[in-house]
Amino acid sequence: MARLNGKKVLITQSDDYMGPAIKDLFAKEGAEVTALPGVVPFKDDFRQYVSGCDDVDILIANLAHDPKSTPVDDIKDDDWHSLFNTMVHPLMCLVRHFAPLMAKRGHGKIVAITSAAPLKGIPGSTAYCAARGAQNSFVRAAGLEFAPSNVQINAIAQNYVSNPVYYPDELVASTRFQKHLERNVPTRRIARQEEQAELALFLASDKSDFIVGQVMPFAGGWVTTT
Amino acid sequence: MARLNGKKVLITQSDDYMGPAIKDLFAKEGAEVTALPGVVPFKDDFRQYVSGCDDVDILIANLAHDPKSTPVDDIKDDDWHSLFNTMVHPLMCLVRHFAPLMAKRGHGKIVAITSAAPLKGIPGSTAYCAARGAQNSFVRAAGLEFAPSNVQINAIAQNYVSNPVYYPDELVASTRFQKHLERNVPTRRIARQEEQAELALFLASDKSDFIVGQVMPFAGGWVTTT
Amino acid sequence: MARLNGKKVLITQSDDYMGPAIKDLFAKEGAEVTALPGVVPFKDDFRQYVSGCDDVDILIANLAHDPKSTPVDDIKDDDWHSLFNTMVHPLMCLVRHFAPLMAKRGHGKIVAITSAAPLKGIPGSTAYCAARGAQNSFVRAAGLEFAPSNVQINAIAQNYVSNPVYYPDELVASTRFQKHLERNVPTRRIARQEEQAELALFLASDKSDFIVGQVMPFAGGWVTTT
Amino acid sequence: MARLNGKKVLITQSDDYMGPAIKDLFAKEGAEVTALPGVVPFKDDFRQYVSGCDDVDILIANLAHDPKSTPVDDIKDDDWHSLFNTMVHPLMCLVRHFAPLMAKRGHGKIVAITSAAPLKGIPGSTAYCAARGAQNSFVRAAGLEFAPSNVQINAIAQNYVSNPVYYPDELVASTRFQKHLERNVPTRRIARQEEQAELALFLASDKSDFIVGQVMPFAGGWVTTT
Repeated sequence: MARLNGKKVLITQSDDYMGPAIKDLFAKEGAEVTALPGVVPFKDDFRQYVSGCDDVDILIANLAHDPKSTPVDDIKDDDWHSLFNTMVHPLMCLVRHFAPLMAKRGHGKIVAITSAAPLKGIPGSTAYCAARGAQNSFVRAAGLEFAPSNVQINAIAQNYVSNPVYYPDELVASTRFQKHLERNVPTRRIARQEEQAELALFLASDKSDFIVGQVMPFAGGWVTTT
Repeated sequence: MARLNGKKVLITQSDDYMGPAIKDLFAKEGAEVTALPGVVPFKDDFRQYVSGCDDVDILIANLAHDPKSTPVDDIKDDDWHSLFNTMVHPLMCLVRHFAPLMAKRGHGKIVAITSAAPLKGIPGSTAYCAARGAQNSFVRAAGLEFAPSNVQINAIAQNYVSNPVYYPDELVASTRFQKHLERNVPTRRIARQEEQAELALFLASDKSDFIVGQVMPFAGGWVTTT
Repeated sequence: MARLNGKKVLITQSDDYMGPAIKDLFAKEGAEVTALPGVVPFKDDFRQYVSGCDDVDILIANLAHDPKSTPVDDIKDDDWHSLFNTMVHPLMCLVRHFAPLMAKRGHGKIVAITSAAPLKGIPGSTAYCAARGAQNSFVRAAGLEFAPSNVQINAIAQNYVSNPVYYPDELVASTRFQKHLERNVPTRRIARQEEQAELALFLASDKSDFIVGQVMPFAGGWVTTT
Repeated sequence: MARLNGKKVLITQSDDYMGPAIKDLFAKEGAEVTALPGVVPFKDDFRQYVSGCDDVDILIANLAHDPKSTPVDDIKDDDWHSLFNTMVHPLMCLVRHFAPLMAKRGHGKIVAITSAAPLKGIPGSTAYCAARGAQNSFVRAAGLEFAPSNVQINAIAQNYVSNPVYYPDELVASTRFQKHLERNVPTRRIARQEEQAELALFLASDKSDFIVGQVMPFAGGWVTTT
């Protein structure tokens, strides 16, 4: 049985991060997927970016950016703002646009693909932690706000999920990375993108209507609290 | 497609709490369910209770007890110990018995049905919070310990899920309770047991192998951190 | 015994939020306080704002903004960015400027005055939650990064602390607010600013050198997790 | 100025764990300290143990036990119960006895010395995590319950604090342990007991009356969430 039969799904920045894997799984589950590639704009061109999508049942707010990891001393203003411009401000625009439309229709799902980094704090990635932390906190509050309207907004706070940007194959194969996994990740492996997509599917399906405002760690035990 | 086809599942204290709903859903999904009614013993008769079940793929550690809510001043020694004897010590016995067997076979799932109460702290239910908190903390640590053995151990930390013990129908229908929901539970409703069973199914299925040691709130937004 | 004898302290946006109370207490404890009024700029004029302060031992990153509470649908772009421009970007600039200087001298303290709001999630204050959440996440990561350099960076995540902006006297005195306190704040009262300043003092003193990267709730039990 | 002038303080299990350091600092700060050595009984002899102490202003619930670290498979029933009998059940007895007396007098402080272990989850120390987790959860709930009575109950969830039982000098001096610290503890050192006592002092003093039901990590950045 296809679990998203007839559901209209919008995936943003669809060529990056978890976009491709979620697109594939959701299509296989019967969804009618609109995949919008490219960074989501947060100014005047936002409406253009999402035009024609107002009737989606499910929004996958997939927003990603090179983490620009660097010690605090060396944070460049441009990198800092680029992280917020790509991941934080567009998330607000997306939720502000779609959640009220969903509320009006009486149902809807928003799944933000964020990060577990701010749940633990990563030295050398403080800018990334700040931006992802803003996302997680926004999802929590917006999730509570839209809960009475039967719109469920949650985040997947992930780390150690295979993807070309953060975990290219040659990095993963290296002895050094394998040792890092052994020390830091209880599962001692990174996840395949398809595994992440299954959690996204669960949170996008009507089986999870009682889950709202949650920031769900998906990191092989690397974090256990939120 | 049945999602637990051929899987052997053990559900403890199966007539109480989430036992009946999980049993129904898991059977419908193709599982071969062994439902053991009654409180799980934690002394010599534990082995008797679980005899013949050593080959289960999935254990639902469903353990429940009247919360014995009362101000701290009035906690009875017997009630305190009864909570630990019913919910905490048996959970350790179950994990100690089954997790190593699963590890030896190379895979396995344990889902503990616990509570969100200790994540927030409920005045007047301190004994219950202490016992459920012991469960959650044990699951977190044991989940990390068995992660490298491909055995996933997680907890569902729930509240406001319909069940005859904690939320009898006439309570739920009362104006007072409805007002309580409006003020305290963002979804403004309690969950049906079937909804909870869907989360248990997700955590029991092989779709969630990267999730370990997690205490997942399932409480309509009543708690958002762990 | 004055607990900050001879310590050089910088307090930003010193006329707002916790600035006045911290200034008074720290001065009483022997500190040499530089109080900089006004919003902290985060662009070219940042260096001008902090000029002459490079040798401070303790930085109180006190940054505040009207919460601009409104449903998600009505968030104004200008308000959203104003929150980030006032509270988030300046915090990064402050830490990027002062923490390395402190690290070079071999010791230092940064206490960010943030909010408990993002720890719980407040419907109707999602923009504020997002900005304060960015702060908390940045403090956590930066706190871990500077821990080996003997610079301690922590945040006070407060709510229900008396101050003219968020809790004017006539609001606090109202029956409605008193009822709100009874239902939501276990202490059933708001804190005086002097009480908050005592926690700031503890975190700014050399008695708390083992505490790093923490987001400490200070909210009368309104939140209990981070 | 002595910060505990004239305060009556009870420290349990006073020869172990943080007992000696807290006793010294509190006495220096003017407190009248009653130090009760030995494991706190939780059955009939509890009243005998605490007899004559009913008028204490401050209770330091210092309860400790060898962590009995072992893989789950090898947990001995006796060790498991010994952990709960020493740390969990006595904590309830202490709070049940003293908190109502304090509430009747209109003020009081209870500081439980627990552990950060359950906040993260330590493979190989699951029994210890369970027992310490029960303590933390009990403190959170009891802290909220007694907040309106002006009795503040909090916990210090510590790790990596010097003490003869968990961190004997020769262990700390070893190259292996130093490497462990570098990898796991952001401060790259363990705390002196006196540093921990300063946090206990802050939580025991009347400067922290707005802090209730909190489980405060004290672990050099090893954990950052609760």
